[in-house]
Amino acid sequence: MTRTVGVIGGMGPLATQAFMRALVQETDASTDQDHLHVLVDSDPSIPDRTAFITGAGPDPRPAILAAGRRLQIAGAELFVMPCNTANVWVDEIQERLAMPFVDWIQTAVDSVPPGSVVGLLATSGTIRAGHFQRRLDEKGIAWRTPPERDQDKVMTAIYGPGGVKTIGRAGPSARGAIQAISRRLREQGATSLLLACTELPFLVPEVELDGMVVIDPAVATARRVIWQAGGTVRRQDSVA
Amino acid sequence: MTRTVGVIGGMGPLATQAFMRALVQETDASTDQDHLHVLVDSDPSIPDRTAFITGAGPDPRPAILAAGRRLQIAGAELFVMPCNTANVWVDEIQERLAMPFVDWIQTAVDSVPPGSVVGLLATSGTIRAGHFQRRLDEKGIAWRTPPERDQDKVMTAIYGPGGVKTIGRAGPSARGAIQAISRRLREQGATSLLLACTELPFLVPEVELDGMVVIDPAVATARRVIWQAGGTVRRQDSVA
Repeated sequence: MTRTVGVIGGMGPLATQAFMRALVQETDASTDQDHLHVLVDSDPSIPDRTAFITGAGPDPRPAILAAGRRLQIAGAELFVMPCNTANVWVDEIQERLAMPFVDWIQTAVDSVPPGSVVGLLATSGTIRAGHFQRRLDEKGIAWRTPPERDQDKVMTAIYGPGGVKTIGRAGPSARGAIQAISRRLREQGATSLLLACTELPFLVPEVELDGMVVIDPAVATARRVIWQAGGTVRRQDSVA
Repeated sequence: MTRTVGVIGGMGPLATQAFMRALVQETDASTDQDHLHVLVDSDPSIPDRTAFITGAGPDPRPAILAAGRRLQIAGAELFVMPCNTANVWVDEIQERLAMPFVDWIQTAVDSVPPGSVVGLLATSGTIRAGHFQRRLDEKGIAWRTPPERDQDKVMTAIYGPGGVKTIGRAGPSARGAIQAISRRLREQGATSLLLACTELPFLVPEVELDGMVVIDPAVATARRVIWQAGGTVRRQDSVA
């Protein structure tokens, strides 16, 4: 028997559907019926996570817990939150719901190729919370974050005019900004690029950027969710 | 206040995430918080719809109703099923759940450009059920369906080796088959192509094929759902 997956989504809604696509594509299935049972609560009214961490908005945790409880009642048994920033609270949310979660940040860090120097692209909330940096330190993986001026530009590419959350897809200005910032991280020694915000893969669709390996935590997390839920993970070399 | 949308999904899982993407992209939003609250039950164990209609498998309606009830308990107020074939039962399911549904087939037919001759591409279950043809007849819209040999190839492109449900994405052989079948529908007089199976848009990603207008019911249905749920529909000319 497989376990029903509960996705606490809407952070943002585009990231939720990208994660669902990863769940489908990373499952080794040949009919609809081979896929996992997935329940999704995509509540975009959950307050912005970075705004809260930077002291500029209300606490999103009550709304996250409420979504989790709705999913629990509907039958979800294994949880995941497709939002890097929200995962800074994964331990306390897991404890409050008394249900198992797949830890997005830990899974992302576990998927970094050995010997990498990681360029960390994330919201200012995720960067300030410091969870990625601590987990990378624990594994002895070196990392670089963008300088403050570039970090502001990362936020604009996500939230600003022409940004992913604003227009619901990748705009050319946002794409160009992320490419320039990534190049400067490479000049600082980064050999891989960790896309630690679910909106960034829309701006960096390639598996490689300027010679850096691109890591999308959604794919690694989808694979861990499938495995933990009892589904069959697609062999990596069989993904086109 | 907007209404919470309930998506009875998993028919198939790939179509469910494509419909969620359409819901995001067709909403006029500039922040996450402008989007609708969407609950999804993607239960791929729902028996195959076409297999039931053609007498080759069990009845999927009990599982569809069970998913609808779970969504209802979780708070869904307006329902939709991203599966053309399942929508042949939309009236009875709506009545059994006593909840409003957006009728996928009617919405698709309403989105056909005036004066079109429709080439209908669908599963054999949908074709045999005849709902699309009757609704097109009611509106005085002419239609063509593929000859039996081509209809078998449509099924292979969806279910067969290299088909969308089998490999979770568009394969080259399936793409080529659909293109050849579409060309023959055009030779029979079709001026537009109605992709009346949620798996087909993965094989026909263009807005036009060989001079025929391509109609993806997911987009029209997403727009009707957003409107009926009280969200703001993106102006059509503002979609890139």
